[in-house]
Amino acid sequence: MKNTAILLISCPDQRGLVATIAEFLYRHNANILHADQHQDAELKLFLMRVEWDLADFQLDLDAFSQHFAPIAERFEMDWRLALSGNRPKLAIFVSRYDHCLADLLYRHQAGELHCDIPLIVSNHTDTRWLAEAHNIPFQHIAIHKDAKAEAEKDQLALLRHEHVDFIVLARYMQVLSPEFIRHYPNRIINIHHSFLPAFHGAKPYHRAFERGVKLIGATSHYVTEVLDDGPIIEQDVARISHRDQIGDLIQKGADLEKIVLSRAVRWHIESRILLYANKTVVFD
Amino acid sequence: MKNTAILLISCPDQRGLVATIAEFLYRHNANILHADQHQDAELKLFLMRVEWDLADFQLDLDAFSQHFAPIAERFEMDWRLALSGNRPKLAIFVSRYDHCLADLLYRHQAGELHCDIPLIVSNHTDTRWLAEAHNIPFQHIAIHKDAKAEAEKDQLALLRHEHVDFIVLARYMQVLSPEFIRHYPNRIINIHHSFLPAFHGAKPYHRAFERGVKLIGATSHYVTEVLDDGPIIEQDVARISHRDQIGDLIQKGADLEKIVLSRAVRWHIESRILLYANKTVVFD
Amino acid sequence: MKNTAILLISCPDQRGLVATIAEFLYRHNANILHADQHQDAELKLFLMRVEWDLADFQLDLDAFSQHFAPIAERFEMDWRLALSGNRPKLAIFVSRYDHCLADLLYRHQAGELHCDIPLIVSNHTDTRWLAEAHNIPFQHIAIHKDAKAEAEKDQLALLRHEHVDFIVLARYMQVLSPEFIRHYPNRIINIHHSFLPAFHGAKPYHRAFERGVKLIGATSHYVTEVLDDGPIIEQDVARISHRDQIGDLIQKGADLEKIVLSRAVRWHIESRILLYANKTVVFD
Amino acid sequence: MKNTAILLISCPDQRGLVATIAEFLYRHNANILHADQHQDAELKLFLMRVEWDLADFQLDLDAFSQHFAPIAERFEMDWRLALSGNRPKLAIFVSRYDHCLADLLYRHQAGELHCDIPLIVSNHTDTRWLAEAHNIPFQHIAIHKDAKAEAEKDQLALLRHEHVDFIVLARYMQVLSPEFIRHYPNRIINIHHSFLPAFHGAKPYHRAFERGVKLIGATSHYVTEVLDDGPIIEQDVARISHRDQIGDLIQKGADLEKIVLSRAVRWHIESRILLYANKTVVFD
Repeated sequence: MKNTAILLISCPDQRGLVATIAEFLYRHNANILHADQHQDAELKLFLMRVEWDLADFQLDLDAFSQHFAPIAERFEMDWRLALSGNRPKLAIFVSRYDHCLADLLYRHQAGELHCDIPLIVSNHTDTRWLAEAHNIPFQHIAIHKDAKAEAEKDQLALLRHEHVDFIVLARYMQVLSPEFIRHYPNRIINIHHSFLPAFHGAKPYHRAFERGVKLIGATSHYVTEVLDDGPIIEQDVARISHRDQIGDLIQKGADLEKIVLSRAVRWHIESRILLYANKTVVFD
Repeated sequence: MKNTAILLISCPDQRGLVATIAEFLYRHNANILHADQHQDAELKLFLMRVEWDLADFQLDLDAFSQHFAPIAERFEMDWRLALSGNRPKLAIFVSRYDHCLADLLYRHQAGELHCDIPLIVSNHTDTRWLAEAHNIPFQHIAIHKDAKAEAEKDQLALLRHEHVDFIVLARYMQVLSPEFIRHYPNRIINIHHSFLPAFHGAKPYHRAFERGVKLIGATSHYVTEVLDDGPIIEQDVARISHRDQIGDLIQKGADLEKIVLSRAVRWHIESRILLYANKTVVFD
Repeated sequence: MKNTAILLISCPDQRGLVATIAEFLYRHNANILHADQHQDAELKLFLMRVEWDLADFQLDLDAFSQHFAPIAERFEMDWRLALSGNRPKLAIFVSRYDHCLADLLYRHQAGELHCDIPLIVSNHTDTRWLAEAHNIPFQHIAIHKDAKAEAEKDQLALLRHEHVDFIVLARYMQVLSPEFIRHYPNRIINIHHSFLPAFHGAKPYHRAFERGVKLIGATSHYVTEVLDDGPIIEQDVARISHRDQIGDLIQKGADLEKIVLSRAVRWHIESRILLYANKTVVFD
Repeated sequence: MKNTAILLISCPDQRGLVATIAEFLYRHNANILHADQHQDAELKLFLMRVEWDLADFQLDLDAFSQHFAPIAERFEMDWRLALSGNRPKLAIFVSRYDHCLADLLYRHQAGELHCDIPLIVSNHTDTRWLAEAHNIPFQHIAIHKDAKAEAEKDQLALLRHEHVDFIVLARYMQVLSPEFIRHYPNRIINIHHSFLPAFHGAKPYHRAFERGVKLIGATSHYVTEVLDDGPIIEQDVARISHRDQIGDLIQKGADLEKIVLSRAVRWHIESRILLYANKTVVFD
């Protein structure tokens, strides 16, 4: 794999943006590998992802910020630089359902996810064997109804200790507090089932079955303080017929959740996702 | 096409049902072409669709009811007999959006829909040309805010006059009154957009766009007195990305609506749909 | 899970078939849970799958064959009885690609596949760790170019010793000899990539990439003596764009292969597949 | 709709390309609305589509070529400029199957296809009524086995007379000669069915049915001298089960063909397709 840099930009749309950015990269001899941009006509917003080979790049990355600052200021850019050589550190939170965890661990082992996983946190011990089979540290932090804040404190301490960059809720059945979420803004990825029409409350597969839906879906999104309402990263559906019993719905749903979550995690790792106005642009 | 009879049955599940029905048909020399059944284990319900060739059938269809009555009573059956030779009469209701109407008329002309269409009703005149191009009678019944009941009366008179069997709302933008619906129970098919998550109220495509959904969907259902909450017949989705503008969403949505509605209409015509507990079984 | 029996029948289509089978089951007090049938109008063939609860069934299963024989003879049936209580024994063959193996082992562990796996056979040792993590016996049988027959003999000995019922080729990259296949007719399931148009020969993903296909697919089928031409059990596709590099194609292909193969294996285990005229009916 | 210009470029990949193009557009005050690019790493090729608002553009379009020439030469560009204000002229060729024709005419009427259709050519008269319902000139040119060249001459004369820009074969069942194709290189779009595995020769739906495929597909491509082997523009599939009879396959296939062809035609009209190495990049 090539050693690359990825520049992510969002700013008010105006003329000269692309010319200026492209000129800056060209001046420092960047060999652009991928470039993608998007304009939101209504919000007059410009978003860009550009990735280049670091092989012949003539600017010291430590000095990038300093050199790029005048451009960033002129165009009021919100920007960040990601390096393919820096493997982000992922912590996986899980409860009892293990299908998403198993899928992520397999993909990690297979080299599909370019990240490190220094930590699995669970409020149960059911999945410890999976963590051990993949040689990933497993931490059991029980959640007691009256001591949730305490548990979150312990979780945060572990996350800090491992310098975790982002968190994946792989069917973690506890609601995180706003305080917790604020520590990892737009860096917590969740997966949940989705239906047409939507069902709220408990046992959604049972309710979808009763309603006779012909499709079930799954949605992966960033976690914000409003439950299940953060920016959507990916969605997919599977077909259902009257021949499918509740058990079939749950199994098809689990397969969907695995696929949808793993796509979202991969895109996050590869710095393909830009956020604005509570939605995402995925530069795939 | 063969001349066939279709028997649709729903009743409490119990032993001996299939044996009794199959024996009855065999005794009268029915050549079964298709048979499909479904059991709802929770509700202990049995549903069946059986279709046979009328060529060698030795029971006069006029006497079918009388001969089948003892079986029906014994098993407390809800049943009906449909004949492929009887083309049901369809009335299409439409407002201004014409994509579903054009699609249904094309399919009818192409021989895909084995029904007669004696009537198109619209509260606008925009689609008159389409009706005329396909030689289908078009009736314009304007809907005035304060005279909706009057307009429905006129519609019902037309429907009765044409002996209409079922109605398709091909993007008909008026809400039908419960009184109207009661005249055609489970015989009015509607199509509407569906989203994950669901959006209520006006301009749903705009709201889906703002929310950054990655899929849009369409649902066809029978109309009941609870708006958009009748038994679902069919659903499908299309993929959306940030590259799709609102216009693209609307166009992809229109394509979905056509496909989903036409499937629902065809299944209804072919007596493939059984209803129970506010949901459908589609014997496809 | 209920203790059930599944009767699979294929025979020339004729009147009285369903009546006779249903009467037989009713006479012995079978509580039918699922029944599905299919008629091939052109070949005049009848296929049926019927599953009933054994709880109140009044016929000793050891005597089933004897009691059912007259019916089977009369209708020239090809039939077999499967019992949900008998977990079939599966051997998995694998080479180096481990995505299908890992997926099957996870699903087995999660209780999705109601079978026993007494044996994993590989011509490499790369996947031994996976077998060990799941506590499944792993046998390495190297394939030497000039001693393939010998290797197959060893494989067959292992299969016999474990009383294996069916084999899944989870990306096993060796061609099995016709002799080997004859030991497990319609009991070897394979998975391979599929493209529109088709590509033969080596490096198909590279050729699909060069050809600029917009879809890639996977097909699971029973292995017959004609390579990759056995009865198709399941197929699916994934969407590709010019943004996908060869690595993306291979990964999307691997995800497809897992899903498609696991469906085929589950249907086989649940006795949902009937074969005729080199094709399958899947009673899902 | 905005009045825009679209610049399509393909050239050897090298540094400074984007900077130079962006600077050129910026210098002439172009307000870029969309820009998309693609790099083929193996072939070291750069492809770009950039669209800008002409409202404030300060370069006379007649002089564009002259001003852009130095850049084009320096980077050895293959390029062209398209204007959204120029509606391309489309001729539709059709035989007897009318589903694709009806779909294209409906979409054209509905404003989905920003082109003019001055001509429908058919070797049959079955679809004349459709052309007339949409007020499109219809020309019947019979194809006699021994006088095919003559017929093509007549077709070419009509195309020239109407200044046709591109041709859509909407299920036109005649093979065009290489001579004919050379007049419209990469400007003839075809649609055909696709299967996994592929079937060659006559009655493909019948053969797919016999083979028991679980998916059927459709492919739209540019016509080249090698039959059905031109650059693929779009593909899609539909799911099939044993319950689908040949008639169902044909109908599902027809629905697919309509959708896939209409996408390809729209992308062509909107100058979204770039060709290289016998494949397409679709900047959607």
